[in-house]
Amino acid sequence: MTSQTADAASARGRGRRPGGVDTRAAIVEAARKSFAAKGYDKSSLRGIAREAGVDPALVHHYFDGKAALFAETMAVPVNPVELIERVLEGGHERLGWRLVETFLTVWEPPESRESLVALVRSATTSEEAARMLREFLGREVFGRLAAAAGAEDAQLRGALAASQMIGVVMARYVVRVPGLAEATRAELVERLGPVLQGYLVDGATRPE
Amino acid sequence: MTSQTADAASARGRGRRPGGVDTRAAIVEAARKSFAAKGYDKSSLRGIAREAGVDPALVHHYFDGKAALFAETMAVPVNPVELIERVLEGGHERLGWRLVETFLTVWEPPESRESLVALVRSATTSEEAARMLREFLGREVFGRLAAAAGAEDAQLRGALAASQMIGVVMARYVVRVPGLAEATRAELVERLGPVLQGYLVDGATRPE
Repeated sequence: MTSQTADAASARGRGRRPGGVDTRAAIVEAARKSFAAKGYDKSSLRGIAREAGVDPALVHHYFDGKAALFAETMAVPVNPVELIERVLEGGHERLGWRLVETFLTVWEPPESRESLVALVRSATTSEEAARMLREFLGREVFGRLAAAAGAEDAQLRGALAASQMIGVVMARYVVRVPGLAEATRAELVERLGPVLQGYLVDGATRPE
Repeated sequence: MTSQTADAASARGRGRRPGGVDTRAAIVEAARKSFAAKGYDKSSLRGIAREAGVDPALVHHYFDGKAALFAETMAVPVNPVELIERVLEGGHERLGWRLVETFLTVWEPPESRESLVALVRSATTSEEAARMLREFLGREVFGRLAAAAGAEDAQLRGALAASQMIGVVMARYVVRVPGLAEATRAELVERLGPVLQGYLVDGATRPE
C-alpha cells in the first residue's frame, strides 16, 4: 500500500502514471466495499482513501467526486455493454428468458449481489444515487433492450422490464420474501422469462 | 396537544383511558411523518414523542418499541385486510387486474406514497424493517392472495407477485424510471394486470 501510494503520488507529481492503474483500481475496490457496507450517504472519499491506503488528494485526482466514483463501482458487477451484447445475441426470440438468465448469473456471486444491494439501498436514501440508477438503467440497460426490440412504446416497455428486475433484487436479496429467496435460478428463469418477453417484445407495434 | 397529553397521562396514572385514543393516534401520525421524512433508522421514539407533543414515556406505554410503532404506521396507508377483501371480491377472474388497480389507487395519494417509499427505504437500510416488510407482505398481502388462488405453489406465486409490485414502487416512486414515472394508472393496469394474473392464477395446479 505504501509503495503504491508513493508510486501514484510521484506519478501525479511528474505527469506520468506508472502506478496509476493499480492505485485507481485500489480506490475503486475500496469504494465498492465502502458503498456495500455503509451505503452511499455514509461513505466518504476520505474513508475510501484511508481504506485504499492512498492520500485523499489522489481520490480527487482520479475521480470527480463521490458520485463519479460510485458510478465507476456500479460497472464492476454488471458491465452493461457486455450484458446487453450477451442478451441481444440471438435476436428477439426468447429475449426475456435470456435476460433473466443473464442477470441472475451476473448477480448470484455474493460480491456482485452485495454491490447490487448497495446500489438499491443508495437509490432509496439519496436522490443523487436514484438519479444515477435511473440514468444507468435507462441509457445502458433497459433502454437499449427496448430499443433493440424496436417497439414504438419502447420506453414504457423498458421501464416495465426494469421494474420487474428491480423488484426481483428487492424481493430476493433485500426483503428476502419467502418463496423467492429460496427459488432456484431455473425456476426464476421459467417464471420471469415469459413476463420479460411480454414486456419487451410481445405485441410490439414497430415503426418500420 | 397539552390537554391531550394531560388526559393521556392522567388516564395512564388512574388506569382508565378517556384521552388514550387521541394520544395514540397523535403518536402514530407523528411516527408516520417521521418515518416518511427520515426513514426508519434516523427516527427516534424521543423525536416522535416531541413531534406528537407527548411525554416519551407515553410512547413506550402504548407501543413496544420503535419496531411495533413502525408496524402500526404501515397499516395506515394500506390496510391489508381491507385491501385483500376488495381484491378477492369477484373471485379468480381478472384478479391480477383488480390487484394492480387497487394497489395503485391506494398508493397514488401523496401521503400514502410517502409512507410506502419510507417503508421501502427502511427495508433496504434495516434488517429489522426488512423482516417486518417480509412478514407483512407474506402473511397479510401476497400470501393471502396466493392462498385464495389455491395453487400448490402458492408461496412462490405470491412472492413473484410481491416482487413485481415492490418493483413498481421502486421504479415509479423511488428511482422514477422514465416511462413508468409518467405512465397513467390505466396504462399500468393494462400492462401489469395480465402479469399479476399469470403469477397468481394462470396454470395453477390445485390440490383439491
